[in-house]
Amino acid sequence: MKENKYDDAAFFAKYAGMHRSIYGLAGAAEWAALRAMLPDTAGKSVLDLGCGYGWHCRYFAESGASRVLGIDLSERMLAEARSRANPPAIEYRRAAMEELDFPAGSFDLVFSSLAFHYVRDFAPLVANIARWLKRGGALVCSMEHPVFTSSGPQDWDYAPDGTIRHFPVDRYFEEGEREAIFLGERVIKYHRTLTTIVGALFASGLRLTGLVEPQPPEDMLDLPGMRDEMRRPMMLLLSAKKA
Amino acid sequence: MKENKYDDAAFFAKYAGMHRSIYGLAGAAEWAALRAMLPDTAGKSVLDLGCGYGWHCRYFAESGASRVLGIDLSERMLAEARSRANPPAIEYRRAAMEELDFPAGSFDLVFSSLAFHYVRDFAPLVANIARWLKRGGALVCSMEHPVFTSSGPQDWDYAPDGTIRHFPVDRYFEEGEREAIFLGERVIKYHRTLTTIVGALFASGLRLTGLVEPQPPEDMLDLPGMRDEMRRPMMLLLSAKKA
Repeated sequence: MKENKYDDAAFFAKYAGMHRSIYGLAGAAEWAALRAMLPDTAGKSVLDLGCGYGWHCRYFAESGASRVLGIDLSERMLAEARSRANPPAIEYRRAAMEELDFPAGSFDLVFSSLAFHYVRDFAPLVANIARWLKRGGALVCSMEHPVFTSSGPQDWDYAPDGTIRHFPVDRYFEEGEREAIFLGERVIKYHRTLTTIVGALFASGLRLTGLVEPQPPEDMLDLPGMRDEMRRPMMLLLSAKKA
Repeated sequence: MKENKYDDAAFFAKYAGMHRSIYGLAGAAEWAALRAMLPDTAGKSVLDLGCGYGWHCRYFAESGASRVLGIDLSERMLAEARSRANPPAIEYRRAAMEELDFPAGSFDLVFSSLAFHYVRDFAPLVANIARWLKRGGALVCSMEHPVFTSSGPQDWDYAPDGTIRHFPVDRYFEEGEREAIFLGERVIKYHRTLTTIVGALFASGLRLTGLVEPQPPEDMLDLPGMRDEMRRPMMLLLSAKKA
């Protein structure tokens, strides 16, 4: 059974209070970098894996996509997504992304924001995505950075006075389950090396076209904790193309 | 003036005592992974940037390369390289790789082992390499991993009893000069994010074909310190192709 922390009421309430949950794309520090990697989706079909509140689905629909299919494992997330004003091009569906199946060449863009680190078996999923894409189609995704996932707790190393000393990397080549603390709750994530992540794209025949570790934008540097994000890479954004 | 620590007698003597300096390619933990990324060089022309003792130059010549040009900034390194039995295909030349110039399309393979982290301005060098390559030619290189270069000292974080706690990442997005301790001496290296490294390849029109963070091979795990190398990525191997 896939872990579905987002249907836990207490966890979901905390998630709802996050800056990015309140302000949407404008509240996500990586959005400008991620948007710059997206192809034009006017008239295109888009699959969003782990759509959450549906911010990106709405962005694609507003950008003229002819069809947007948003997938999420969490009923609460989908209820939240459906409660917003949604253009008719969007369909939301509850599913685990690992269990989806579509005919080959179904989508122009497969997109995923901060969901892949919950997936245990990455390579088979990427092989599926490569198959679901049309020729010339693209995968654009964000995930937690291997530096951020490697040691486990995803927390800084602190001096006795409580100031940050640095960010710890450990167990880097020991891939697999990590128990992280996110919003004060235990959450299972999966650590993979950069080699494995990028290797899955190569192995599925996709061509890597972009790799970006986003930095906080200037106008967000005064948000709590944001300046510390200059000290470590927390996210990895990738774009790839099906030739 | 480029720093040239390798012409410092004391430093060079220590370098000569390293496992990889004594045993050559067989003594380099990353060699198997790096070799797997190399194209067939039989009948091909190869440029080796930062050739050191010439181990790779000899490997290319023995693999049938028609011409191998080994470049190094250090006279001592080149003297050591020339003192070995070298096939006639090899030419060694003293130069800073940043100041080289060749006609477009001069080489089938540009290779570099653990030298790029001494280069301050990476993007112009990669642009040159892309120009020097023939169509269909490849760049294959190793360098220190951004995780390894970010904080500066390149040392573990230790517990009071002297055991390793983890490897520190810090100042990740603050690119530039770092003063590292290598073989007990201060050495200037340059930290770049993965984004910048891979971005330089994309910007020069090269297609990324491989990205590997090598792990110590099984048969070297009992060498001093080698098991700890499973805890952090120390090197980054890249291959790219000129379309």
